[in-house]
Order: sequence, then structure tokens, then C-alpha cells
Amino acid sequence: MAYHLLQHDRKGAQQLGDAVLGALRSVRHCKRCNTFAEEDICERCASPRRDKSVLCVVETPVDLNMMEQTHAYQGLYYVLMGRISPLDGIGARELGLEQLMARVQDGLVREVILATNFTNEGEATAHYITAMLNLKGISVTRIARGVPVGGELEYVDSGTLAQALRERRACGG
Amino acid sequence: MAYHLLQHDRKGAQQLGDAVLGALRSVRHCKRCNTFAEEDICERCASPRRDKSVLCVVETPVDLNMMEQTHAYQGLYYVLMGRISPLDGIGARELGLEQLMARVQDGLVREVILATNFTNEGEATAHYITAMLNLKGISVTRIARGVPVGGELEYVDSGTLAQALRERRACGG
Repeated sequence: MAYHLLQHDRKGAQQLGDAVLGALRSVRHCKRCNTFAEEDICERCASPRRDKSVLCVVETPVDLNMMEQTHAYQGLYYVLMGRISPLDGIGARELGLEQLMARVQDGLVREVILATNFTNEGEATAHYITAMLNLKGISVTRIARGVPVGGELEYVDSGTLAQALRERRACGG
Repeated sequence: MAYHLLQHDRKGAQQLGDAVLGALRSVRHCKRCNTFAEEDICERCASPRRDKSVLCVVETPVDLNMMEQTHAYQGLYYVLMGRISPLDGIGARELGLEQLMARVQDGLVREVILATNFTNEGEATAHYITAMLNLKGISVTRIARGVPVGGELEYVDSGTLAQALRERRACGG
């Protein structure tokens, strides 16, 4: 790409450089949900139409977008910008979990939904946050683990199936 | 394979033919769980070590094997040998659901776990069985739908994520 820009599209290269520098200058973190934003408080956090009693905790802005694409969630978010990962030297302090604790205690949040990944690091992060929030008496939930929608038992791994069995739910009346 | 057997391995062909005919003669359906068996009552149904109060309903013997491979289930099974599929002309009668109803009312079964696939047909089958069993006052559960173990939100489809959100569960104390 670099060769192409330098040889065939010097104007494009100028625009790309300007855009990257502009983004560097103007994009920072929303003071409430910690995602990327150009304002102090991002549009979503400032919106009067979002449900302020539910807070969904995700690892990255990409995960936030995935949740938004479901069109099934109307609450607010908190973006960790990472996960607890002792092997990489990232613990609760490096992840800035105090900022999440402060956010949660705004008097409006009634439920925190943990939507971190179902990897080892994501699960560890969820456990840690659960322990912290239970001490504060805030209700904590975790998105469901199980067989994907459209999935067939034959093509699902044993771990997922065992989990789906363990977390089975009552049907009907 | 046919050419190879006829030209190079006529003894093998004889054995294969005998095996297929033997299987046709001796393999039938277990009278209790409806899976393939050489006896009237299969080994699993006859075992004194299985928990007789839980009955897991699956579509096929392959699904039964998947459940067994999790090593997370100690109860008994019922194999539908199919699913409700109106497009293929298979309704409750063709699927033989009365046999399931009779099996469930042995006085020992306390919970029926529906482990049909999460396809349209599998879901329809689960709904139908739920309605039938609720009338009889038997507790019915469904294995969990959600994000697979090890899964990352970024790679999960919207439908599954929406479902995982809807079926979120309480964490900790």
C-alpha cells in the first residue's frame, strides 16, 4: 500500500496522513463508557432514549458494535478496553476497574450485564467484576453460554454441550 | 470400493455382506429409549447405575453419542429418530410421540431435558413436546442456547448474541 500511495496516489497519501493525525488528535475515551469518542461524553451515553438502569460490560469497542447489531439491547455500556490477563501483566489495576466501579455507582444502574468473551481471560475478568460488584450489592448477570442458534448437537464441541446441559432452563408453564 | 473388493478382496466382500445382513437381522430399536440395540432393552436402559429420574430427548443416536461424550450426563435417553418437519410430512403422529409420552409416565421420570437441535425443526419439536408434557405436569427443561465455550463476541452471529443476552443468568451471591 505504501509503494502504491507514494508512486500513484500522492494526494491520497496526504489525505490518509491527515486523517490518521486528525483521529489521533480528536479521538479520546468517553468519560462515562470509556469507548472511543470525539466528545467528552459519547453520543450513546448522552442519549435520553437509552435505558440507564442496565450497564453492559464488554472488552472492546468492536464487541460493543456486535451488541448494537443485535438490536436487542437498549441499555448503556462500559468498555474495558482489554481484559484481565496475568500472563500479559494485566490485572485489575492495569485494566482500571476502579473507573468501572465509580461508573456503576451513579445511583441509576440496577443491573450489570457481563458480556466479556468466553475465553479464559474473559471469564476471569467476569469473575473478578462479579466479586467486586457483589460486595456493593449490585445485581450482576452474565450472557448465556450454550449451543448457538441454528446449531446442531452433532457439530458442537463437548465442552459447550456439557455447559448447555448444566445451564438448561425450564420450559413453559 | 466395490471394484476394489471384487478384484482384490473377495473374502472382505463376503465379510462385509455378512456383516450388513447380520446387522439388518439383529439391530432393532430399544423398547424403552428407541435407539438402535441388539436386545429388547438396550444396555444403557438396563443399567442400574443410570439416574432414572431424568430423561434426555435427542433426535438421533448420533446426538445421544454426543451427549455421552460430554461425560456430564448420568440419566437416561429417549431417541426420537427424527424431528417434526411439516415440509417433509412428519408430524407428531409420524414421529411416534405417543411412545415418548408412554415412556415418560413410568412413575420414575421427574425431569425431561429437551436436547433437540436448535434448527427450526428441532425447536418446533421441542415446543410441541413441551406443550404435551406440561399438560401431564412433568417438569421440562431445554439445554441452553448462547455463546459457545471459548467463543469471542466478535465471531458470534447476531441471533446467537441476542439470544445469549435475553437468556442471561444471575452471577454469584
